[in-house]
Amino acid sequence: MVGALFQPCGNSTVQLSCRSDLRRSPLPSKLTTAAQITRAHSSSWASLQADIEAHLKQAIPMKEPLVVFEPMHHLAFTAPRTTVPALCVAACELVGGHQDRALPAASALLLMQAVAYTHEHLPLTDRPRPKARGHHEYDPNIELLTGDGMIPLAFELLARSDVPTRVDSDRILRVMVEISRAVGSEGLVKGQYRKFVRTQLDGEANIKAEVEKGEGGMHACGAACGAVLGDGSEEEIEKLRNYGLYVGMMQGMMRGAENAEKGLKKELEEIRKVALGELEFFEGRNIEVISRFIDV
Amino acid sequence: MVGALFQPCGNSTVQLSCRSDLRRSPLPSKLTTAAQITRAHSSSWASLQADIEAHLKQAIPMKEPLVVFEPMHHLAFTAPRTTVPALCVAACELVGGHQDRALPAASALLLMQAVAYTHEHLPLTDRPRPKARGHHEYDPNIELLTGDGMIPLAFELLARSDVPTRVDSDRILRVMVEISRAVGSEGLVKGQYRKFVRTQLDGEANIKAEVEKGEGGMHACGAACGAVLGDGSEEEIEKLRNYGLYVGMMQGMMRGAENAEKGLKKELEEIRKVALGELEFFEGRNIEVISRFIDV
Repeated sequence: MVGALFQPCGNSTVQLSCRSDLRRSPLPSKLTTAAQITRAHSSSWASLQADIEAHLKQAIPMKEPLVVFEPMHHLAFTAPRTTVPALCVAACELVGGHQDRALPAASALLLMQAVAYTHEHLPLTDRPRPKARGHHEYDPNIELLTGDGMIPLAFELLARSDVPTRVDSDRILRVMVEISRAVGSEGLVKGQYRKFVRTQLDGEANIKAEVEKGEGGMHACGAACGAVLGDGSEEEIEKLRNYGLYVGMMQGMMRGAENAEKGLKKELEEIRKVALGELEFFEGRNIEVISRFIDV
Repeated sequence: MVGALFQPCGNSTVQLSCRSDLRRSPLPSKLTTAAQITRAHSSSWASLQADIEAHLKQAIPMKEPLVVFEPMHHLAFTAPRTTVPALCVAACELVGGHQDRALPAASALLLMQAVAYTHEHLPLTDRPRPKARGHHEYDPNIELLTGDGMIPLAFELLARSDVPTRVDSDRILRVMVEISRAVGSEGLVKGQYRKFVRTQLDGEANIKAEVEKGEGGMHACGAACGAVLGDGSEEEIEKLRNYGLYVGMMQGMMRGAENAEKGLKKELEEIRKVALGELEFFEGRNIEVISRFIDV
């Protein structure tokens, strides 16, 4: 149940009525700060998220010029949280890697999702259906530029991560390709395109396709990156990639669903079974933390 | 004189009257296509640029879904050209590396500058001084998303570049950090912030500071990356970084200057001397191509 903390709609019952959320954003839309998580729970989930944010705080120090770093800090830490970064760390630990190895990638994933959220809420003059956030903390030009600065920073965190944690360079390059594809034009951006084109044409939502590139693809990427950085075998990496995909798809579909959709509960239960099936491969290891990601 | 082809204002005399250009954008604002360059000149300059664009064309194939790849293709190849990518390749060759090693980095730099140009011309609702391009080929939402997809692609090109060209992974990671810093919040984005804040406050232009982060920083980065990938020594890398900085600063200052500024010509001549001084280190090698970058 702790997993629900990372979700925008509270718990699974409420989430089923949150279809409008999917239309607005592939990312959760309610803010949940790390502090809130930490106060409410002392579970390993909260601890993972807190570790990631502590790592990121060091990477984005509040230094001069504040006009540059203050908005970056703000947007990174107030954008809605997802379970993707924590899943990355959990996957790394499951295959035997120390969490330090996964923290730069987890931070990079957090930054990437913060940029997607920020840019999706920019007030462009001809947004077909303006997605006004209640309040823009900064001038939109600054938010646009800040996002543009955060994407390279995410890759920089990864590029610099080989020194202290001794992950070999080839694994880092592989993770970069994974993240680039998950967030880029073949991944998250493609999902956003689809959604944009659909809203323009007032078309029928292909929720599964959007969710596959959105929550599904990002969670698959997070889990695979964690396994790569934890020095997992190819089979472990693929099992965890599949598990992540199912976790993300369940989250996305629940957010996109309406209570009226009778068939959904059954479909989700099927996905849940397949997802847990992927974890059977890790029999004998401690799957307690990672298996909670499915319980949203 | 071939270098002038990469410049928006034709030749140095005209450039001196183009101060308004610097106010609009840190990047050249007149479109010069590779085809035009190739038709007009068969020099090694044109050849370098053509090689980079050929490499990039392979990296961004026109494939389905066209809604994703067509805008990416368009924005990458119609954004104003700069001398940064060609300088990267020239620096690689100067230190003895094959140009293949530098092409992914040169392509990444071209993409990064295309994103900066695209995002700088998005019609945000509260741009203090709207920078309307004559015509937006695509819906601004698509242009925003395309840019967001192009930055990860740039890093992906680099991350994948270790296999065929046998550049070692550590050098690629180093180049990623170089590029991230040059385009990110400590570099190009910082220059754009400065300019944005200045235009908001109607402040006095600190052209040198803007140019140092803009054209200067990007050329320094391009030259340093080329030298790193060409397996240059630390001393060679730093000499070429300095040379690139001067080349970029000269270009930016000329574009930002007015004919009335009597002192400028002398200042530029000083920078030119110092820049060529950096190349003395490479005595005995063929500096013909790289030394042309200063003759803009």
